[in-house]
Amino acid sequence: MTSKRYLIIGGVAGGMSVATRLRRLDEHAQITVLERGGHVSFANCGLPYHLGGVIEERSSLLLQTPESLRSRFDLDVRVRTEAVAIDRAARTVTARDLTTGEQTVLPFDALVLSPGSVPIRPPMPGGERMLSLWNIDDLDAAMSRLEAKPRTALVIGAGFIGLEMVENLAHRGIDVALVELADQVLPPVDPEMAGPVAQRLIDRGVDVRLGTEVVEIGPGSAMLDDGSVVAAEFVLGSVGVRPETGLARAAGLELGERGGIRVDDRLRTSDPHIWAIGDAVEKVDAITGEHRLIALAGLANRHGRLAADAITGRDIRVRDALGTAVVGVMGLTVAATGWNEKLLRSRGRDIRVLHTHPASHTGYYPGAETMSLKLLVDAETDLILGVQGVGGDGVDKRIDVIATAMAGGITASELAELELAYAPQYSSAKDPVNMLGYVAMNAADGLTPSIQWHEVDRAVEAGATVLDIRTAGEVDEGAVPGSLRIPLDELRDRLDELPEGRLVVHCKVGQRGHTAVRLLAQHGRDAVNLDGGYLTWRAGIDSRRLVAPAPAGTRAA
Amino acid sequence: MTSKRYLIIGGVAGGMSVATRLRRLDEHAQITVLERGGHVSFANCGLPYHLGGVIEERSSLLLQTPESLRSRFDLDVRVRTEAVAIDRAARTVTARDLTTGEQTVLPFDALVLSPGSVPIRPPMPGGERMLSLWNIDDLDAAMSRLEAKPRTALVIGAGFIGLEMVENLAHRGIDVALVELADQVLPPVDPEMAGPVAQRLIDRGVDVRLGTEVVEIGPGSAMLDDGSVVAAEFVLGSVGVRPETGLARAAGLELGERGGIRVDDRLRTSDPHIWAIGDAVEKVDAITGEHRLIALAGLANRHGRLAADAITGRDIRVRDALGTAVVGVMGLTVAATGWNEKLLRSRGRDIRVLHTHPASHTGYYPGAETMSLKLLVDAETDLILGVQGVGGDGVDKRIDVIATAMAGGITASELAELELAYAPQYSSAKDPVNMLGYVAMNAADGLTPSIQWHEVDRAVEAGATVLDIRTAGEVDEGAVPGSLRIPLDELRDRLDELPEGRLVVHCKVGQRGHTAVRLLAQHGRDAVNLDGGYLTWRAGIDSRRLVAPAPAGTRAA
Repeated sequence: MTSKRYLIIGGVAGGMSVATRLRRLDEHAQITVLERGGHVSFANCGLPYHLGGVIEERSSLLLQTPESLRSRFDLDVRVRTEAVAIDRAARTVTARDLTTGEQTVLPFDALVLSPGSVPIRPPMPGGERMLSLWNIDDLDAAMSRLEAKPRTALVIGAGFIGLEMVENLAHRGIDVALVELADQVLPPVDPEMAGPVAQRLIDRGVDVRLGTEVVEIGPGSAMLDDGSVVAAEFVLGSVGVRPETGLARAAGLELGERGGIRVDDRLRTSDPHIWAIGDAVEKVDAITGEHRLIALAGLANRHGRLAADAITGRDIRVRDALGTAVVGVMGLTVAATGWNEKLLRSRGRDIRVLHTHPASHTGYYPGAETMSLKLLVDAETDLILGVQGVGGDGVDKRIDVIATAMAGGITASELAELELAYAPQYSSAKDPVNMLGYVAMNAADGLTPSIQWHEVDRAVEAGATVLDIRTAGEVDEGAVPGSLRIPLDELRDRLDELPEGRLVVHCKVGQRGHTAVRLLAQHGRDAVNLDGGYLTWRAGIDSRRLVAPAPAGTRAA
Repeated sequence: MTSKRYLIIGGVAGGMSVATRLRRLDEHAQITVLERGGHVSFANCGLPYHLGGVIEERSSLLLQTPESLRSRFDLDVRVRTEAVAIDRAARTVTARDLTTGEQTVLPFDALVLSPGSVPIRPPMPGGERMLSLWNIDDLDAAMSRLEAKPRTALVIGAGFIGLEMVENLAHRGIDVALVELADQVLPPVDPEMAGPVAQRLIDRGVDVRLGTEVVEIGPGSAMLDDGSVVAAEFVLGSVGVRPETGLARAAGLELGERGGIRVDDRLRTSDPHIWAIGDAVEKVDAITGEHRLIALAGLANRHGRLAADAITGRDIRVRDALGTAVVGVMGLTVAATGWNEKLLRSRGRDIRVLHTHPASHTGYYPGAETMSLKLLVDAETDLILGVQGVGGDGVDKRIDVIATAMAGGITASELAELELAYAPQYSSAKDPVNMLGYVAMNAADGLTPSIQWHEVDRAVEAGATVLDIRTAGEVDEGAVPGSLRIPLDELRDRLDELPEGRLVVHCKVGQRGHTAVRLLAQHGRDAVNLDGGYLTWRAGIDSRRLVAPAPAGTRAA
């Protein structure tokens, strides 16, 4: 029996998962890994935190070396070695040693492409001054630039990684400006959820510029499309990545309409001897069934293992992807999975939207923090289409629980029945996830009709009255303009004070509003609950204010 | 239309959930709540923490009052009022005002029993000196006893609540002894998981006595069945609860073989006009389908709401119960759901058992804490039967995720595919839950056979060799006696040093052991992986040492 020759292009995340799993499955195979960069299996998600000094040692990001992989897994790992061509008919790959320029032809029985993605660099004057942070070489370049002790920095792009960059540069004591083309930070979540995150950045001194674009980067400053100039001795960009498909394209492998490598549900490309995984590959979206690019380490690792299983003859099926993600921003946790309201509405999906503002654990036990949760539900099937969370302690837990519920086909209403671990310092007898289920159930069976924060104006224009049932003390902290105020505990006795027509009822978070709507409905009134209460309405309205045109030149160099 | 008369017996947790939900569903009903104690809707799970001074204000435990419930929900709540008899034919309840002795007969259209449970008091001389902590009156009695500033305390019973009592008394600076009849603390989890919890208590100065019983309580000390005496100026008991079924029994309602009120899957008792919920009711176990008593606030609240739905004509189905629970003990979190190994083996279930020791988040990001997880899997179906977790940060999250997976019918192997939120400070690219899935998959398809810590002795007796593949530095911290030591990274080159016969391979946590077993198997060796590695073996062996007979009289008064 001759041993199999397995060749893997790309030695980070997915590529290394393939290689080590292949070894466990086939002790006698020849397994070769080609990596264009100088390092394999490094902690790409840790890069911003070394930049910020939170992770002190660069070496702690280097999880494996070619030497450690040889001794433990008998892998032939070649760094600074680029795969330059695939000969599909001959089943060979030509590899070039980037140090010596020497070329080698490597035969394979199975080839795995795990080339990853590369940061997008918007073309502009001075664009070469924008650094990326996608691999160890990028990190080294950025760290050496920081030795000049810049006092000001600009981050372009307010996605998950962009915000990690902001946090870490601020952690170094640098004045940071953040520029984002969209009208909000964190485009994967909806504006009323992202608004408080932007506000937190502003409160911590970050110069946040939304709905604007950098048009030129100079030696110590950058110009935006509104003509303003921001000081920027150091510029980091994170405006997205594109799949690294050059080699696949040149080899004639099928690509998808999103520009990624197309694979089947067994991770096989259009060539039966070639598999592909990771950022370069299009995934199937679990909500829509469409192909989509999702650059997440978790999926890359998981698919790496599955590819090894498939190559060695195991029957695998790749699960459609939700794209769960989380980021820590200046003490806030933001996490999401599935689709958001913007996308679902743009597709014309019939959805129910729920906002809650629960405490991380019982209010009577010290240290409870408020979080905001948003659930997107299919109006017909009650299936969960997406969830978003922003807050402190316990946000990641609730998103993980709901991502698991989605994977298990648990409906929104069924969240009420989940048995989650409860003691006063961990949760509430009705966990925030259970509460979402209750709200979903009340929405599903029509008990409490609700409207969204962005629908209030239209309702008022149509003649509705906003009824604020909070206590006087709560109203003092801010209110919807023009609202009528009757505290819930007096409502039953003051029904005759209500004007005719529809009532848009709201409390602080939506829970008392539900009680009030039930009360009013049974007294024959047309009442709807403002979903998420005053807090969601406030966050939504405020999120619009954050896009106000920036005063020109406020941080001019 | 005459308004319905709804009568609820018991005004805590479940009872109050019924009442408020009924009001939301029926604005015009007469809703009366009878509560024997002095308070309704108090935070029973917070009681130990007020005892310990963690929750400073007693008032913060009193979530609602009869007055607040009247003004918001128009409820007629009568405290210190006991239901003394149910006349099922007449559909009335006789209630006695415990202050005045006055009796009233209350008619009902629907009656809900939510009488709860009462602490078990083992009969013994001086037993009246043992306090309980089950309601506000208990708390008041305990707090007034603490005014005498006892320096020593005894807690009887090492279940979840017993350990909360220990923690809180220790938090007050009191020397605490803990006596438990079983050979371990926290009987709902298995001994190798509970051992480190007992050790933590010992390390923090608690006098832990396992496998022993209190036989007499004196004025300042207590005597155990081994003849030893422990100083105990203050004695709290938590040895379990029994369902409060006197009223139901007297009314001739059907009880179950566990002694609780029997209800159908719509929470209806054997009388079609009477529903029952909470601790007094037997639940259907989700793993076995048997009836079982589970005293958990979460289930009581949830079933309260469902009972209200059922009474008002909604079609409900109660989900079978897992019994998820969590407790914080001196900085450790212990959480579990479903069945444990002891119970499953005692039933002869064919199971797979998996132990892991993952970090709460990536090792390269500061602050990661190790946890221990244990998964019980049905060997035939791969369904998850139970899970246990002990550790610091993030244990509750993983148990909640797996409880959700169980509810969704996700198999152990499918845990690998869950998309959980990952950033370096929250998780790992392969979350601990995913890792359990990988281990489960390797076990399910026979790739890596494993044995448990308690099976090692038998394997060695049968001729197996224990092969320790850890590094020399790790071995220095302790090892399995008689093991052969070859570090994993040298194993491939030193295969000829291995003795004949079966090899029981182990590393620290089991992961490298998996790699070694795969390597050895493909070189024709009969190798099994010690599940959970050295850490699980150590915890299991140590858990047995904790039951050593206590030195008599060490803390004699």
